[in-house]
Amino acid sequence: MAEENIIFVGKKPTMNYVLAVVTQFNNNVDHITIKARGKAISKAVDIAEITRHKFIQDAKYGNIKVETEVLQGERGESNVSSIEITLTR
Amino acid sequence: MAEENIIFVGKKPTMNYVLAVVTQFNNNVDHITIKARGKAISKAVDIAEITRHKFIQDAKYGNIKVETEVLQGERGESNVSSIEITLTR
Repeated sequence: MAEENIIFVGKKPTMNYVLAVVTQFNNNVDHITIKARGKAISKAVDIAEITRHKFIQDAKYGNIKVETEVLQGERGESNVSSIEITLTR
Repeated sequence: MAEENIIFVGKKPTMNYVLAVVTQFNNNVDHITIKARGKAISKAVDIAEITRHKFIQDAKYGNIKVETEVLQGERGESNVSSIEITLTR
């Protein structure tokens, strides 16, 4: 299932997500998409770079997509940037 | 000069950098690269998205490059992720 190849980055430590990415690659998944919003975008880039440099050296960047998501909150709509980084091997 | 087309993102407010990007596009520059390191990466994505949605609607993403830079500090080397986002019109 495609959904299994997506890692959503939140408030956990960076290495938790790196471990999740590495584990999926070791289960013979050939591409993984790392998604993040707002301030977690920097963490998503760290996760991709640490994965490539320390663990899965043959991983390469696929598409890197940036967009704006509109969130509905109690005080109305707000815009937040998001990133999707695809790693393939 | 190519150097004039690069915006380095630091600690100033997001809109300062958006204004710098918009000003360059209005001076007939056809591509601008936004560069950031570490936690400023999220801000770089915001700058690109605000520019595209609010000011330069015909701007499109060119290359988005992610890499790791090695910084020399008093306590030795440290690694920091960086991003380069190119906008073209």
